[in-house]
Amino acid sequence: MNKDVVVTEQTRLRRLHERGHFDRETIYSILDAMPLCHVGFSLNDKPVVIPTFQWRDGDYIYWHGSKASRGIRASEGSDVCLTVSILDGMVVARSGMHHSANFRSVMIFGRPSVVDDSMHKAESLNAFIDALYPGRSQTLRPMTDQEAKATTVLRMPIDEASAKIRDDGVHDDEEDYALPIWAGVIPIRHTVGAPIPDPRNVPGVNMPDHIKAFTMK
Amino acid sequence: MNKDVVVTEQTRLRRLHERGHFDRETIYSILDAMPLCHVGFSLNDKPVVIPTFQWRDGDYIYWHGSKASRGIRASEGSDVCLTVSILDGMVVARSGMHHSANFRSVMIFGRPSVVDDSMHKAESLNAFIDALYPGRSQTLRPMTDQEAKATTVLRMPIDEASAKIRDDGVHDDEEDYALPIWAGVIPIRHTVGAPIPDPRNVPGVNMPDHIKAFTMK
Repeated sequence: MNKDVVVTEQTRLRRLHERGHFDRETIYSILDAMPLCHVGFSLNDKPVVIPTFQWRDGDYIYWHGSKASRGIRASEGSDVCLTVSILDGMVVARSGMHHSANFRSVMIFGRPSVVDDSMHKAESLNAFIDALYPGRSQTLRPMTDQEAKATTVLRMPIDEASAKIRDDGVHDDEEDYALPIWAGVIPIRHTVGAPIPDPRNVPGVNMPDHIKAFTMK
Repeated sequence: MNKDVVVTEQTRLRRLHERGHFDRETIYSILDAMPLCHVGFSLNDKPVVIPTFQWRDGDYIYWHGSKASRGIRASEGSDVCLTVSILDGMVVARSGMHHSANFRSVMIFGRPSVVDDSMHKAESLNAFIDALYPGRSQTLRPMTDQEAKATTVLRMPIDEASAKIRDDGVHDDEEDYALPIWAGVIPIRHTVGAPIPDPRNVPGVNMPDHIKAFTMK
C-alpha cells in the first residue's frame, strides 16, 4: 500500500492548523478506534450530515444503510465527506482564546460506489460485525436473501484523506502565565460498561469472549 | 418559545426510522449534553464535514472558528447541516441484521449568520466558555480586540431540526430467540478523568469548582 494518501485542496484544509497527518498508519488507527462517523452528502442541493457506523477493509472505507434510505441513495456515486472524530480532552486555558480540545479526527473525501456483488456484500457485512466483535459473524445465523436485498453497502477508497490530532497541554500567551488562573487538561474517554444480557437469551448461553473484550480506544 | 420545531422534508428524514423527536426539550437536552458537533457545508460544490464545538443560547445554536478558516467562510449565509451525536451503547443481536447502536443525535438545518456586533460577539464567546465551565469567563483576562477580530462567531436559529434516539434492548426476529447465541447491550459513555493541572500554574492556584464539576451527560 502507498504509505501516504493523496493531498488535495480539500484535505489541505487541515494544514492551516498545523496538526495535519497524511500517513495511512495514523489515519487508519483513528478509523479503527471509532466506528461512529458522520457522512456528509448533498440532498436537494443542501448538505446533510448523518451519523452512522463505518468499517475499514484495507484501503477502503465502508458504511451501510437501508436500501430505502434517501441518504444512502443520495450518496451513491456522489461526492461525500466522511468524518470520524474522537474527543480526548478539554483544554482549559488562562484566556478564552486558548481554550481548546484534545481530539483525533479523520476526513475522507470521495464518491462511494455500491457493493453490488452478493458475495462481496455478504463478506463486507460480516467484516463489519467482526470489526466490532472479532469472530462473531461465524456464530450468527446466515443473512437471508431478503435482508441482503434490503441493505445497501457503500465503499470508497481511502485516497483523499487527512487526520488531525491535538494531544497536548495548554498553550497560553507568554504574558498570561503569570495570571493566578487555574489552567489544565480534563481527560475524556469512552468507557465501556458491563454488558447487559438480553433477558430472552437461551438459558446456559454464556457471554462470548468477543463481547467481554469489546473496548473503545 | 414554540414547543416544537418546524418539520420539513429534510428533518423528516428521521421519520423513516420511527425514532424521531421534534420537541425542543428533547433536542436541547442532546445539544446541551455534547459540545462536539459536525458541521456540513459545501466548498467548491462538494460536501465537507468538520468537527467543532457548538453551544446554545435559547433557540439559537452557535459555533466559531478562525476568521481565516475556509470552512467558516464557506458556511456564512450558506446552507449547512449541524449534527450532534452521542454513542450510548452497542446492541448485539442474534442476527447480523439486528445489530444496532443506542445513541442520541440531533440534526439542525439552516443558514448561519455572522455575529457582527462586537458586544454580542464577546457575550457569545463568554457564553461558550460558561456553557462548558459555568462562571469561568468572569475569571479570565478580557478578550483583546485582536482576538475578537481573528474570530468569527456563527449562529443559526434552531427551527428546522430533529432528534433521533435509540435507547432500547435487542430486537431480533421472533424465530431467532430460540438460537443459542448471546445477545445484549454493551453500555458506552464518556468518562471524565481527573483534571491535569498545567505545570506552569501559579503556585497556590487551586482547581476551581467549575473544573471539578465538569461532566459529560
